[in-house]
Amino acid sequence: MEFQRPTLSRRGGDVPWSPIRKLTPLADEARGRGVEVLHLNIGQPDIRTPRPVLDAYRSFDADVLAYSPSLGIPRLRESIAAYYQRCGISVEPRDVAITVGGSEAIFFALSAVCDPGDEILVREPFYANYVAFAAMISAKVVPIPASIDEGFALPSRERISRFIGPRTKALLYISPENPTGIVYDSAELETLRELCRRFGLYLIADEVYREFIYDDHVAFRSVLDLPDLAEHAILIDSVSKRFSSCGARIGSLTTRNRLVMELVDKFAQARLCPPTVGQLAADAAYRMDPSYFEPIRNEYRRRRDLVVESLRRIPGTLFHVPEGAFYLMARLPVTDAEEFARFLLTDFSWKGKTVMLAPGQGFYSTPDRGRDEVRIAYVLECGRLAEAMEILERALDAYNNFTGGAPATRSAARCRA
Amino acid sequence: MEFQRPTLSRRGGDVPWSPIRKLTPLADEARGRGVEVLHLNIGQPDIRTPRPVLDAYRSFDADVLAYSPSLGIPRLRESIAAYYQRCGISVEPRDVAITVGGSEAIFFALSAVCDPGDEILVREPFYANYVAFAAMISAKVVPIPASIDEGFALPSRERISRFIGPRTKALLYISPENPTGIVYDSAELETLRELCRRFGLYLIADEVYREFIYDDHVAFRSVLDLPDLAEHAILIDSVSKRFSSCGARIGSLTTRNRLVMELVDKFAQARLCPPTVGQLAADAAYRMDPSYFEPIRNEYRRRRDLVVESLRRIPGTLFHVPEGAFYLMARLPVTDAEEFARFLLTDFSWKGKTVMLAPGQGFYSTPDRGRDEVRIAYVLECGRLAEAMEILERALDAYNNFTGGAPATRSAARCRA
Repeated sequence: MEFQRPTLSRRGGDVPWSPIRKLTPLADEARGRGVEVLHLNIGQPDIRTPRPVLDAYRSFDADVLAYSPSLGIPRLRESIAAYYQRCGISVEPRDVAITVGGSEAIFFALSAVCDPGDEILVREPFYANYVAFAAMISAKVVPIPASIDEGFALPSRERISRFIGPRTKALLYISPENPTGIVYDSAELETLRELCRRFGLYLIADEVYREFIYDDHVAFRSVLDLPDLAEHAILIDSVSKRFSSCGARIGSLTTRNRLVMELVDKFAQARLCPPTVGQLAADAAYRMDPSYFEPIRNEYRRRRDLVVESLRRIPGTLFHVPEGAFYLMARLPVTDAEEFARFLLTDFSWKGKTVMLAPGQGFYSTPDRGRDEVRIAYVLECGRLAEAMEILERALDAYNNFTGGAPATRSAARCRA
Repeated sequence: MEFQRPTLSRRGGDVPWSPIRKLTPLADEARGRGVEVLHLNIGQPDIRTPRPVLDAYRSFDADVLAYSPSLGIPRLRESIAAYYQRCGISVEPRDVAITVGGSEAIFFALSAVCDPGDEILVREPFYANYVAFAAMISAKVVPIPASIDEGFALPSRERISRFIGPRTKALLYISPENPTGIVYDSAELETLRELCRRFGLYLIADEVYREFIYDDHVAFRSVLDLPDLAEHAILIDSVSKRFSSCGARIGSLTTRNRLVMELVDKFAQARLCPPTVGQLAADAAYRMDPSYFEPIRNEYRRRRDLVVESLRRIPGTLFHVPEGAFYLMARLPVTDAEEFARFLLTDFSWKGKTVMLAPGQGFYSTPDRGRDEVRIAYVLECGRLAEAMEILERALDAYNNFTGGAPATRSAARCRA
C-alpha cells in the first residue's frame, strides 16, 4: 500500500509572521545572557488596569461559568452604545456586536465583505495583522503607499482611485494610527468618504486609540459620524488599549448596516461567545467616568514628547511627530533597520540593558519599503523610556562605527499644521 | 455623481444559522407570555464550575491585565500536556497551542489545511458549526451520510473513499459525538486512520467530551494514540464541557506535525492571545485530581438513562442509545420536527412550562435528511429533565391530535454490542 503525506494550505503561507514578535527568540536569548530588554516593540501598555475591571474578575459570582449570548451580554452592548453617545456618536445597542478583541472585529468585518481574491485598500505603512486577517480568508490587502518623507500624508482622491478595481470591497483605516501615530484630518476623511460612496466600498475604521490624542488642535471624528455613510461604515473597537485590558480579549464591531450585522451574527454564533467574565470587566470599564482618561492622556503625552525630543537629538533620524496612539515610525541612519534591531539584541547592551524594536519593513507589503525604518511604541514610564532612548542612540553609534556607518545628517521631524 | 451600494460576501451567505439557537426568538416570546422554557436545545451544562476555576478569576492579582503569549501561557501548555500524559497520550507542551475555545482550534485546523474550494469529510449528522467554520474560509464540509436506522454506523472504507477527491484535505470526526452521543470504536478509528494514510489526509479529531463516557464496555482511544499518524493527527480540545467552563473560552489544538503548528503559530500571533485570566482558570482546572470527573460522569449517566427510558415509552420514536457526551438524536413520530419544535414554543405548555429542542435538519447538510429528527441535550438535573420528557410526550400527543397525527408505532432504541 502506498502512503501520501498531507499538505498545508497556501493561505497559511500567505499569513505573515508578526513583525512585532519576530525577534522574540533573540530577546529571549538576550535575557538568557542576563541582559534586560526594554520593549519598544509591542503595544502592551504598562498603565495599571483600572480597579473596576480587576474587581469584575475578583467579584465574579456565579455557580456556572456559562456561555453568554453570541453577540455579547446585553448590558455590555448597552454600555458601549452609551459610551458612543457620550462621544457624540448615535448608535443603538443592536448596532454593537461584542467580539473577542478588536482582532475578531476586524476578522468579522473582512469576512462579511470579502470573498477569496477580493481586495481591501489600506494606507501603507499599516498594522501588520490586517494582512494576516485578509490572508486567512484568502483576500488581499492592497497598499496605498504613503511616504515618511511626506509625513505619511494620504494620497489624493485621484491617486487612490487608481488602486480601486472590480475586486476592491473596502477601504480600511485606523485613526489614531498604528504604526504612525497619525490622526486622520477632516480632509482625509472626506476623501475616504467620497471614494466609498462613489465606488460602493465599505469604510472600515479602527478607532481603538480614540482617547489617545495629545494635541488640542487635533480634532477627532468617528467613521460613524460621517454623513451618508450608514450602509458603508463599520467601526472596530477594543478595550485592550483604551482601558489597559489587553488580556480581557474584548472588542466590538459597530455598524448601522443591518445586513452586515446579520452576517456578523452568524459568524458570532459559530464561535459561540466572547469570554463571559471579560465582558463583565469591559462593562465595568465602559461605565467609568470619562475623567479616567485625563491622567493617562497626560502620561502618554509626556512620553510622546520625551521620545520626540530624544529622536530629535539623534542625527540622521526622520519621523512624523505622532498626534495620537503610542507609536511612531522613524527612519534611522542605517540601511537595514532589521539588522540593526537584531544587533541590539545580539551584540549590544549598555549598563546591562538593551532595547527591542519592531523593524519597519513588517508594516509595509510593498517590497523594499520601510527597510530603514522602525516602529517605536512608547509604552514605558518616562524613566525607563529615557533609558531606552539613550540606549538606542548609543547603539546607533556603536552599530555605525561597527558597520562603517551612515552619514550623520541632521534629525528631521515633521508635524502637521 | 453616481453612488453605489456596497455588497456582502458570498461566504457570509454560505455560513448557516446555528440550529441550536435558531428558535431563540420564539423561546423569548414564550417567556414573554410567562411560560418557562426547559432547554434541551443547547449544550450548556448546568454542572457547577469547579471551585479552582472560579478561584482563579477571584484571585487574579496583577496590576496590568496584559496579553499572554500567542500560543498560550507556558504553564497551561505544560498542564495540558501533563493531562494528556495521564490519559496515556504522549505529547510535549510545544505540541499544544491554546485557543479561544475549541471553536478557534477547529478554525485554525481547517485554516492550516484548506484553501478555498477544498473539502473536509465529516460523518453526517454533525456539529453544525463545522459547516460554518469551513464556509468562513470558503472551504466545504462534504457529508458522509450515516443513518439513524443503522445506529449512525460509519460507512465502510470503500464507501467513504468514494467521497474522497482531489480537493479533499481532511477527515474530521468527534468522539464522543455531538449530536449522536456515539463513541467511535476501534474498527471505525482504524477505517479513518487507513484512509488518511492512504490518501494523504489530515485526521482532525474533536475530543472535547473525552471524559463523558457512561458504559464500562466502551473504550476510548485518542487520535494522538493511533499509530503512524503523527503527521496527520490534529486534536481539538476545550475546557468548556470538561470543566463546565463554557464562558472561559479556552480550548487547545494539539499536533505533533511541526509544520501545522508553525501555521497555527502565525494565526495565533495575528489574533494576539487567548483570554489571560481564562487561561489561569483552565490551568487550575487541568491540575485538578481526575477523581473530579467521577460524580459528574455518574450524574450524566443517570440523565442519559432517564432520557433513554422516557423516549422508550414514547411510541414512534427511534434513537441510538448514546454512549457518551450529553446528546442524542431521536426520530420523533412527526413529519417535520422543526414545525413540532416551533409548536412547542408557540402553541404548547404544560403546567406553565414547555421544552426547547434543536431541530435535526440543522445537523445535516444533505437536503431533506433529518427532517423528522431532533437533538436532545440532557443538561438538566433529573427532576427537570423528567418534567421536560413528560412535556415532550404530552406535546407529541397534542401535536399529532392537532395535525392529524403520525402512526403510533412502537419506540425503538438501538445500542452497540
